[in-house]
Amino acid sequence: MGQFAIGIDGGGTNCRAAVIDSTGKILGTGKSGAANILSDLENSLINIVEAARQALASAGLDPELVGRLPAVIGTAGANVGNYGKRLESALPFGNSRVVTDATIALQGALGDADGIIGAFGTGSVYNARRDGKIWGIGGWGFVIGDQASGARLGRDLLERSVLAYDRVTTTSPLTDVIMAEFGNDPERVVEFAHASKPKDFARYSPVIFEYAAMNDVVAMDIVRTAATAITESLDALLWPECPSICLLGGLAQAYRPWLDTRHKALLAEPKGDVLRGAVELAVKLLLDREGSQG
Amino acid sequence: MGQFAIGIDGGGTNCRAAVIDSTGKILGTGKSGAANILSDLENSLINIVEAARQALASAGLDPELVGRLPAVIGTAGANVGNYGKRLESALPFGNSRVVTDATIALQGALGDADGIIGAFGTGSVYNARRDGKIWGIGGWGFVIGDQASGARLGRDLLERSVLAYDRVTTTSPLTDVIMAEFGNDPERVVEFAHASKPKDFARYSPVIFEYAAMNDVVAMDIVRTAATAITESLDALLWPECPSICLLGGLAQAYRPWLDTRHKALLAEPKGDVLRGAVELAVKLLLDREGSQG
Repeated sequence: MGQFAIGIDGGGTNCRAAVIDSTGKILGTGKSGAANILSDLENSLINIVEAARQALASAGLDPELVGRLPAVIGTAGANVGNYGKRLESALPFGNSRVVTDATIALQGALGDADGIIGAFGTGSVYNARRDGKIWGIGGWGFVIGDQASGARLGRDLLERSVLAYDRVTTTSPLTDVIMAEFGNDPERVVEFAHASKPKDFARYSPVIFEYAAMNDVVAMDIVRTAATAITESLDALLWPECPSICLLGGLAQAYRPWLDTRHKALLAEPKGDVLRGAVELAVKLLLDREGSQG
Repeated sequence: MGQFAIGIDGGGTNCRAAVIDSTGKILGTGKSGAANILSDLENSLINIVEAARQALASAGLDPELVGRLPAVIGTAGANVGNYGKRLESALPFGNSRVVTDATIALQGALGDADGIIGAFGTGSVYNARRDGKIWGIGGWGFVIGDQASGARLGRDLLERSVLAYDRVTTTSPLTDVIMAEFGNDPERVVEFAHASKPKDFARYSPVIFEYAAMNDVVAMDIVRTAATAITESLDALLWPECPSICLLGGLAQAYRPWLDTRHKALLAEPKGDVLRGAVELAVKLLLDREGSQG
């Protein structure tokens, strides 16, 4: 069975798996529930294996092959304590390699090359590979981190809207729209903010970029503040020979025009997505195993 | 019984009451549990009356006089919906006047004069009296408001400490102290932040001012950001003839050196505290009643 392997993106919303041959060609894919190994290792295991079995079935292969094929799983929390090792030893694959979600995202975006990735969605996080060594910064959550995240953009907008209501800072068409949404009652904005999770704040990020593009002063200021945070984080990772920077996530395109000129010059399209990253690492594992057996 | 009245500071931690004569002289004081009329009107009522009864007893008067004397109660939430009116009609005093906590704070600090008060503790809020008319801004809570509060100072410090750990922004003696407190583990800082209430963040405000006074670059930057927020809020309230600005609350003294020169020139010591404000308004109510009876 040396000719097949499985790559798995074990995400917080769902798991996606792909069965590949030794050239990296995807023969079949599968999808199941979430993998949150820090909070629910047991169900993460079940969902990871289920996605792999579906991928085998979709490739016309026997799902029972999960017990013999090598697999690479990328998932958040793999580098926290011994969670990665615990998952690795509990998985039923022929042999398993558990890596972080950042590792497969980086592999997907950059392939084997050095470079930097910045991911901007509800949260924000940065990873770099330099001389083959991977390290990351950010991703600390929206209360005291994730400065360029959709959640922080949205929180900033609500803060600016209430300051504008109090006539402490300038009003703008966007703050007027927001206050109108809450019946021009700051109590209601505050109530919403105190009940909101990061994704609730992040829902405001499209309208912020939309108004910023129309030169709304408040929207532009909010986006500029976030873009400055991106600049500082990229500068913390950047080195003179860094070949490229890839922006990932739902806000990647929106942030492009706002980046610092030095960083814009290094922007490159991601080669592939996170599942592609898991697949590439699975090919390496497969070839390693064939090598050691040959 | 025209010669006595009761002033009550109905606070979120406790209620304080004072029995006064028509000259404003305090004859006795009392203290009981919290008044949070928005979340617990029933116990607020009990505590307000209990503080008044204690004040009467401490003045050597019959506690049953609560049913005959006029009283002024200042409490948060008095201007929200019909909460103030509901409290007013439920109280057993001879006649009751319920006003906001801002109204008694302003009366205590400024007496009958015009001016501005800014209160800086766990939260931050501003009120002004101009030509006898009172209005206020801020005080919207630490998630999207209270920019100069102890809670925001502390939250900013934790954010800056994790950014310094990531080498995104500069480290300083203060960020080193904070990271050491959390075993140099940003995961633990994040965990603390996500479990923290405003008062937990606010506990860091003394150390921030202490390090700012020693020219710690991060501490100075955090305090300067908060001081800029104060400047913007005071400017939103200020008018050319404004006679004075009073700073109240636990951080009032600490902020003084950081204020804008224009505002420093107007700083005045508060004439009295919030209970003094309630007492002054109670005297007015007493004299009004005597006037209308005479």
